[in-house]
Order: sequence, then structure tokens, then C-alpha cells
Amino acid sequence: MTLNNLIQSSNVLFLLLGAIMIFAMHAGFAFLEVGSVRRKNQINALVKILTDWAVSTVVYFLIGFPISYGISFIKPANQLMATDMGFSLVRFFFLLTFAACIPAIISGGIAERAKFWPQVIAGAIFAGVLYPFFESLIWGQNSAVFQSFIKSIGGAEFSDYAGSVVVHSFGGWLALPAILILGARKGRYSKTESHPIPISNVPFLALGSWILAVGWFGFNVMSAQNLGDISGLVAINSLFAMVGGIIVALIISKNDPVFIHNGALAGLVAVCAGSNLYHPLAAFIVGGIASIIFVKGFTIETEVFKVDDVLGVFVLHGLVGSWGGIASGIFTHKIFGGMGGLSFISQLLGTVSAIVVALAGGFLVYFLIDKTIGFRMSASEEELGSDLSTHSLEAYPEESLGVVNSLDSYKENSLNVV
Amino acid sequence: MTLNNLIQSSNVLFLLLGAIMIFAMHAGFAFLEVGSVRRKNQINALVKILTDWAVSTVVYFLIGFPISYGISFIKPANQLMATDMGFSLVRFFFLLTFAACIPAIISGGIAERAKFWPQVIAGAIFAGVLYPFFESLIWGQNSAVFQSFIKSIGGAEFSDYAGSVVVHSFGGWLALPAILILGARKGRYSKTESHPIPISNVPFLALGSWILAVGWFGFNVMSAQNLGDISGLVAINSLFAMVGGIIVALIISKNDPVFIHNGALAGLVAVCAGSNLYHPLAAFIVGGIASIIFVKGFTIETEVFKVDDVLGVFVLHGLVGSWGGIASGIFTHKIFGGMGGLSFISQLLGTVSAIVVALAGGFLVYFLIDKTIGFRMSASEEELGSDLSTHSLEAYPEESLGVVNSLDSYKENSLNVV
Amino acid sequence: MTLNNLIQSSNVLFLLLGAIMIFAMHAGFAFLEVGSVRRKNQINALVKILTDWAVSTVVYFLIGFPISYGISFIKPANQLMATDMGFSLVRFFFLLTFAACIPAIISGGIAERAKFWPQVIAGAIFAGVLYPFFESLIWGQNSAVFQSFIKSIGGAEFSDYAGSVVVHSFGGWLALPAILILGARKGRYSKTESHPIPISNVPFLALGSWILAVGWFGFNVMSAQNLGDISGLVAINSLFAMVGGIIVALIISKNDPVFIHNGALAGLVAVCAGSNLYHPLAAFIVGGIASIIFVKGFTIETEVFKVDDVLGVFVLHGLVGSWGGIASGIFTHKIFGGMGGLSFISQLLGTVSAIVVALAGGFLVYFLIDKTIGFRMSASEEELGSDLSTHSLEAYPEESLGVVNSLDSYKENSLNVV
Repeated sequence: MTLNNLIQSSNVLFLLLGAIMIFAMHAGFAFLEVGSVRRKNQINALVKILTDWAVSTVVYFLIGFPISYGISFIKPANQLMATDMGFSLVRFFFLLTFAACIPAIISGGIAERAKFWPQVIAGAIFAGVLYPFFESLIWGQNSAVFQSFIKSIGGAEFSDYAGSVVVHSFGGWLALPAILILGARKGRYSKTESHPIPISNVPFLALGSWILAVGWFGFNVMSAQNLGDISGLVAINSLFAMVGGIIVALIISKNDPVFIHNGALAGLVAVCAGSNLYHPLAAFIVGGIASIIFVKGFTIETEVFKVDDVLGVFVLHGLVGSWGGIASGIFTHKIFGGMGGLSFISQLLGTVSAIVVALAGGFLVYFLIDKTIGFRMSASEEELGSDLSTHSLEAYPEESLGVVNSLDSYKENSLNVV
Repeated sequence: MTLNNLIQSSNVLFLLLGAIMIFAMHAGFAFLEVGSVRRKNQINALVKILTDWAVSTVVYFLIGFPISYGISFIKPANQLMATDMGFSLVRFFFLLTFAACIPAIISGGIAERAKFWPQVIAGAIFAGVLYPFFESLIWGQNSAVFQSFIKSIGGAEFSDYAGSVVVHSFGGWLALPAILILGARKGRYSKTESHPIPISNVPFLALGSWILAVGWFGFNVMSAQNLGDISGLVAINSLFAMVGGIIVALIISKNDPVFIHNGALAGLVAVCAGSNLYHPLAAFIVGGIASIIFVKGFTIETEVFKVDDVLGVFVLHGLVGSWGGIASGIFTHKIFGGMGGLSFISQLLGTVSAIVVALAGGFLVYFLIDKTIGFRMSASEEELGSDLSTHSLEAYPEESLGVVNSLDSYKENSLNVV
Repeated sequence: MTLNNLIQSSNVLFLLLGAIMIFAMHAGFAFLEVGSVRRKNQINALVKILTDWAVSTVVYFLIGFPISYGISFIKPANQLMATDMGFSLVRFFFLLTFAACIPAIISGGIAERAKFWPQVIAGAIFAGVLYPFFESLIWGQNSAVFQSFIKSIGGAEFSDYAGSVVVHSFGGWLALPAILILGARKGRYSKTESHPIPISNVPFLALGSWILAVGWFGFNVMSAQNLGDISGLVAINSLFAMVGGIIVALIISKNDPVFIHNGALAGLVAVCAGSNLYHPLAAFIVGGIASIIFVKGFTIETEVFKVDDVLGVFVLHGLVGSWGGIASGIFTHKIFGGMGGLSFISQLLGTVSAIVVALAGGFLVYFLIDKTIGFRMSASEEELGSDLSTHSLEAYPEESLGVVNSLDSYKENSLNVV
């Protein structure tokens, strides 16, 4: 084996490890939601994430990746493997794991009252078309044009190393119109009061957070895409932003386990964009501020504005992702010990452009879905829970009287209701 | 460090990562069963998988690996490490993870009524002798003879890149005699009717499925066994077969979470054999058909034939594994965009040979066990559950009155029963 | 890319994979404790582990690593990345995962009655100062002096390849004074009798054990710290010690799931020190004896001495870790098929030195904490559970009447109590 063979093989392995780690993160999305919803909607969380993953794979392969990078895989297998041991296929897999985050992020915001298939369709449109369009502007085949436009204003290209903006902010801002169009869960707010709905399972929520946190090191480190560009600094900055997020959430939430486990994720969302450029202690601060944004922002969102964002995804991914895009324009500066080279204006422009595209696209798609096939479950389906109404099974069948009986009693009760 | 040193080190790391990932899959087997059985048999699922792993390690090391590959490790440690940095040891570890799948596959079929030690003994015989014998014919020291026999008939060797046939089908067909000899769980069928027994925990079932799906990329990709032979196509085909399995299961089961999470696994079982040769879209079809076989086959097995295969392992691993062996003789053809080179007849022959060896060996072993030490728990043990009867503990001790009280009340009740 | 670039990149990846795997182990610590405590203390287990991780990261970065290795990271990011692609940063991450095990080990011993912040402070002192001090003697900047002292007595340096003594034994012996100073949980012992407190959740306990076992291969294999020093023998010895631990625990505990899942860990704790030098079958014996020590030791500790070590961490990490240090002085000998080269006297000396430092430091720190800010929760907090008293939330909020109601009813009841 020659050195070049070894380099090629190692690159395939390197990027594949990243893809596998981020694929595993989708289990994290699933369990974070399982723990954060009521027991009657746990199965729906699991099936949504798995289905969105599967559908994203197909649409991103056939439509999305060609939009983003101008590369089609509709050619014989021996041509796919001809020169690079399948590296381009693995690069598709790696970038798919990013695209598939979009519906996974949205899922947590629309939980417990969105219809199953409409949310699958919206996710397919985003992973197959809208996200790839924005991806093409920042990282893909249209980046030369868009980045030179940004550079002409801000003096540097917009830099988003591992997707604070392209992935997280984009997904979070897409979730906002979905949440607003759906409206709050039944019983969440009365005219004057807020009635938080108790979550079901903190250990599952924590398991989801852990799976996400572990996989995130693949998200950020393997964004190098070539082993020769690996950076230990990316790993350590991810670590410190996560730790900053944990510690700040711990203090300001007064030991609340939900905020602490999400605080780790807030730090990680924020650090992606500049993870290759911060000093570790600056990353700590960026992650800490991310946690403040999440804890305070979630409270304001749900209690002041009465927006029923079940897992707080608009704040966690949308606002904190935007913070990550902007923060990298500040805290990567050499006066904070960073590598420097970014423009605050350019970072701001790139961040705002994601918000504009996501908000516009999100409102359009969810509005059309809502007006045509309908986006929200019926009142009785919501009352019954999406597990029984959509999946005909409860999460813990043995504990109840079983599917049939539950359905029977539901039918009896619903007769009275209707 | 020279290039050759680096190649050797990288190979050790590459294959070890595969071994670790597949070791982790055994936790997936455990949780898939934990979620699919009743609460009174959850501990037994966990202990069976861990014990089978441990016993498989010992017997495959001492007996099995020498049978398969003619290599013994009964020599001083410095000789084991002399020339290859321990690569041959890691290769043992990697191939052990395959062998140990045999009892792990069977476990799910015989759940909730098989005695603990008899199933351990059967697993030891399979992992230590029967599986290595078959492995030696296809991949090991006797493959020259057997493969040239197959080639003389079919025109090509039998190809099973990552074990659809050698591992999954072999394990699944071994499970069938075990399930038949045991008979159905008490209460599962009356003379005329079928009474499905509610499963305990869908989130744990889903966790098991996720762990298996993630680790599967190690199963298939690291089957290259050398970093220099890594193939991105193997990874992407695994992905697409899994996704095909998910989507088809979703549609034909009408959103059933159990079928969807097992559908992902059906796709992965089927793709192993030809994962290095399919076009991704052909892999999608192979995985989709695998899900049809699983969903329909499980219903026919349990409802028409009234075979109480608790997790459906005969269908999921046996039939779908056989499908994987045969499908690779069809869908790897160049007209489906594949790499070509396989013979349908040879794939059929190899697949059938696994069925013959597994069925014959399985009936013999389980028949002898049943007639000597007995295979099935007593009626009262089954009623109590294997957790209390075999492990003297319940899965959630705090929730019950505690071990002692439960055992006491059990003894009081059983006095009346006996 | 030159060969040297590839070697450097591969080293960063290799050590980073180890760091990520051990980071994941901390989720294992968390779930092992979640399953082993009562439901009212599950959240506390989760938050303790995450908080201890975060605090350990900060103190080990600022204080600990400089103490151990004389390297400071308080310099601009471009200097941190200047020559090694961030390898030194990743080495910090890897060694941090060891340091952070110290509070994670202790956590399981002091569960269900230790105050939150005092245990955080003690963990910070250990991860930031005491552990780095001992680490510096064995592996770090003061090892030349200390190891030559040991060599002058025992004839060889003290060898601890992956931390049986430096990490596990040190953590376990630190836990002993904490457990003794705290005293037993309310209701655990009456004057004459022992009343074991039922654990809450065996599947979560098993999940924790699995996560730990899988990550352990990173712990041991990546202790090579350079890809060029990778050893397949280390992996296989870890496997065999784990398997020895499982099988022996299974037999002597008569199928007890708690002992079996902890037995795997006992084998892994014991093997670390000599994992690069044993023959696999000798590692099996070392792991098997580790399980005997754990099963018998835990029973003696809790039933004879009435020391309420909730997860048995003093035995599992302290005694078994010490056994690992000593065993490597015996079973790595060439007469047991090992690589040889260690001195029994030196291994004994190194092992005893860890005990002395840990016991002295542990008593001092916990005594001072207990006498100043207090270490133990109030009786009513303990009765209520640390989840509600410290984190204002229950692990399964939906199942109870919700946080507010529980707190209200608690306050009503506690009025009567106080």
C-alpha cells in the first residue's frame, strides 16, 4: 500500500466515523423528545425521528446533494467507487447527517399536536430543497457568488465551520413558524395563565442529551472533512463551550436538570461556527452566554410570549445558533486569544441571511400545509395522544390494559365527547 | 515511524473500532429484548446477553477460532504480539463479535420461557463448534474446498461480505427448532385464538434498535478487515438498505413503531451479503423487500402457524438473512447498477447450505438438551417470571414490595398452585 | 500530505477517539447510579455526574494539568496549534477524562444523602489538585524522582498502563472517608439489623454498565497515547478480564444481575494496570478474582462492617483497583504467559502509595467540608429525596402530581415533622 492509498483510506474512515457519530445523534434527538413529552406521545417522538431520517436520506440523495454540490450519484456503482474508495459517497453520508438535523430539530418544537405525515412532508421539503439551497450558498456550488457578495460588504467571507448557522439556526428558525401556526397544546395556556405541562421522563431526556453531546464531537471535529485538516483545537473548544453551557445553566437555573442537560447542548450549538478559531476559554464564555440565552429565552418565549415550543428548539437552535454565528465574529478575535481572521459584519450578514431564508421558507411551507392537508391533530387525537391515534400503540403496552382495551375505552369516551 | 508501521497500526485501530462497535451492538440485542418482553423477564434478557457474550468469548477463543481459521492463541504473550502489534488478536475479537451474535439472535426467539443454563449451553455449542464449522467453509480454513465445490456448480464462489447468511441467517435458522421445541408461552394461544402478549417498553425496544443500527456500520464497513480495503460504498449501501427497511415498514405496518424499528434492522440484515456490490438504490430495494418479508412473515409465523417467536428472530434473521444471500445474487448485477460478478446459483447454494447446517444442528442440540436437562421453565417459574425465578430480583425492585416479599407471596401462592 | 503529516493527524484522531469514548463513559457512571438509587434520587445522580465533569474540566485545565505535566494552555490559540495540530490539547482532553473519573467514582458511594455543592467542591479539589499531584508522581513531571525511588527498592518502576491504581484505586479509596463521614442512609441499618434499600431500575443500571464497558476499550487501548504504540493485546486482555469478571460473578452470586453487570466492571478495573503485559487467559483469571473481591467484599463491607457504600465503589474501584496494581506484579510474569518485566515489590509500593495519599487527602478534605459547610443533607431533605430538595423536580414529573403539588404536600407534611 502506498502513502497515497493510506491517505485515501484514512480519509474515508475519518469522515465515516463522523457520519456514524452524527447518525447516532439522531437517537439523541429522539430520546430528548421522549423524555420531554408526555407518555402518550413518546412513540411518536421515536417514529418521527426515524422516519425523518429515512426520508431525508432519500430526498437529499436524489435532490438535495445535487442542489448543494452539483454531484449526482445516479451512475453505476463501479463509477461511484472508481477513484476515491467511495470517499464522495461517505461525504454525502456525512453531509446528510447535517441535513437530517433540520426535521429532527423542528420535531421537538411541534411535539404533541402536529400531525404525522404533514410534518414528514415539511421535513422532506426542507432536507431536500430549502436547506440544500442555503447550504449551496455557504458551503456548496453557489458559495463563490454568495461569499464574494458577503466579502464585498464585510471584508471577509462568512465562516461557519460546523453549522451553528447553516444547520442549527436554520432549523430553529424554521421551527418558529411551525410552532406559531400550530398553536399551543391544549391546556398549556388559559386566557390569563400559563400551565406548564409536566414532562414524562428525566432519565430519557438526559440520555438524549448525552447521546447528542458525545456525537457532537464527530459533528465538529469531522467537519474538517479530511484527516489532514483535523484540529485538536476544534475538539477542545467544543468541550469548553459545552462545559460553559453546563455550569452557567446550573447556576442561573438553580440546579434544574432540564436546563442543565439542555445547557450542554446550547454551548455546543453556539460553538460550531467558530470552533476552529476560539481560544478554549473564549469558547467557555460563548457557551456560557448560550446557556443564558437558552434559559432566559425559553422562559420569555413560553411565559411572556406564550409560544408553546415544547423542547425550546427555537431558542436552543434558532437563537443560540444565531448567537454562535455572531459570537464567532467577536470572540475569535486575537484580543480574546483566538486565531482571528473573521469579520463581525460578515458573520452578522451570514447569520441574518439564514434567518431570512428559514423564516420565509418556513412560513410558506407550513402555511400551505396547514391550509391544504392540515397540520394540527384533531382535539380528540391530541387528547388521546399521538401514540394511540397515529401509531395504535402505547409506549408501555403492558402497563395499560393493552391496545385494544385502550382503543375501546377511547371510542366509548369519544362518543360522549363528539 | 515508517509507512509500514503506520499501516500496521492503522489496521489494528480500524479492525478494533469495528470490534468495539459490534460489541456495543450486544447492548442493542439486550435492550431490544428488554423492551419486547414483559417486565417480569427484563432482567433475564439482560443477563442472557451478557452471559452469552462471556461464554462465547471463552469457547470461540479456545475452540471456535482454531476450528474456523486454524490459529491458536495458546502461546506466550510476546509471541502473540511479535510481528503484527496484535492484529491477529484484534481479528479474533472482531470475528468473535460475529460468533457471539448467534446466541444473541436466538435469545429473542426463546424469551420468557427458556431455562437459563440450557440456553447458555446451547449458545456455547453453537459459538464454539457449529458456527465455526460453517464459518470455516465460507470464510475460513476449509473455504478453498467448499467454495471450489460451489464454484463448480454455480460458476462463482459464494460471496457473503458481512454475514447476512453466515451470521444472521445461520442464527435465525438455529432459533427455529429452539422455538418449536419450547412451544409457545403460556397464554399466547388458546385452541382457536391468538392472544398477543403486550410488550413492556417501546422506548427500550427503540433504544436497542438504535444501538444495533449504529453499530451495524462497524459490522459491515470493518468487514473489509484492512483499512486499505475500506469501501465507502459498503457504508452507503448499509444506509440505504436500512432506510428502505424503515420506509417500507412504516407504510405497510401503518405506522407501527415495533415494525418500523425492526424494519431498519431487517434492511441491515439483508444488505450485509452484497453490501460491497450494490448500487445504493438497489440496496434500498433489497432493504425494502426485507421489511415486507419481516412484517408479513412475522404475522404469518405467529398468527397462521402459531409459532411463538417472541421477537420474530426466525423471520428477521433467518428468512431475511436468507433473502440477503439470495438478493445479492440478483441485485448486485450490473443491470441494477451494481458491481456484478456474483452467481445467483452460487448465492442460492451458499444460502441453502447455511439453512441445512443450522436446522440439522439446531434440532439435534435442542432435542438433546430438552430430553436431558430440560429446556423449558416450569409452569410456576414462567408464571412468576424468569427475573424472580432465575435471578431472584425484579427489574424495578423499588416499585414492588421488594424481593423478599415478592418471593414470600410467590411461595404462598405457589403452595396453592402445586 | 507527507508521511509525517499523516502520522501527526492520525495521532490526533487516535487519542481523540479515546477521549470521546471515555467522555461517553461518564454517561455510564450516571446511569449506573440512576439505576442503583431510589427514584427520588435519580435526577441528582444525573446532575452530579454532568456537573462534576464540567467542574473537573475547568480545574484540571487551569490547575491540574499544569501540576501533573507542567504544561499551561494560557497562551494564544495559534500557539496552541502551532506545531502539533492540537495534539497536546487532545492529550489534555484524554487525561481529563481520567481525572474526571475521580468525582464520578466517589458519587456512587455517597449517593442519596450527600449535599450537592459540598460534593462538587470536594470533586474540584481532587480533580484539580490531589489527583494531579499523585498523577505527577506516577506518569507526570515528578515521575522521574518518585519512580527512581520505587525502582531503588523494588528493582523496577511502578507500572500502571491504564490506571487501575492511579485512577480507580485512587478514586475508590477517596470515597471511603466520604462514606464513613456521611454515615449510612436513613433506614439502611437498625441497631442490630441490615435493611437493604431496594434499587429502582435494573435496566438503567445495566445500560450504565454497558456504556462503561464499551468506552473502557478507549480507556485502555488509547492509553498508548500514540497510534504507533497501539497494542491489540491491550484490547484482548481488557476483553478477557471483563469476561472473567462476568462469569465468576454469575456463578458466585447465583445469577444476580447487579453483581453480574458490576462484575464486568470489576474485571475491567483490575486489568488496566497490566493490560499491556498479560496473556489473555491470565487476564481472565485477574478479572475473575476481581469479581470475587467485589461480590464478597461488597457483602462484607455492607453487611459485616455496615458501611453504606451505595454502589460499592470502595470495593469496585478501591479494593479491586488495588488488586489490579498488585495482580500486575504477579500475573504478567512469564510463567503465566505474560510479557514479564514488572516487580511485585514495586507494584505493591505504587499501590500502597495511592492508598496512603487518597486516604489522607480524602479524610482531610471531607472532614473539613463536614465541619464547615456540612456534607450531609438534613433528615427532611433526605426523606424528600435530593431530586425535589436540590433540583425541585422529580425524575418522572408526569407520573406524580407535578412539582408544585409535591412541594406543597411536602411542606405541609414537613410542618408536622419540624
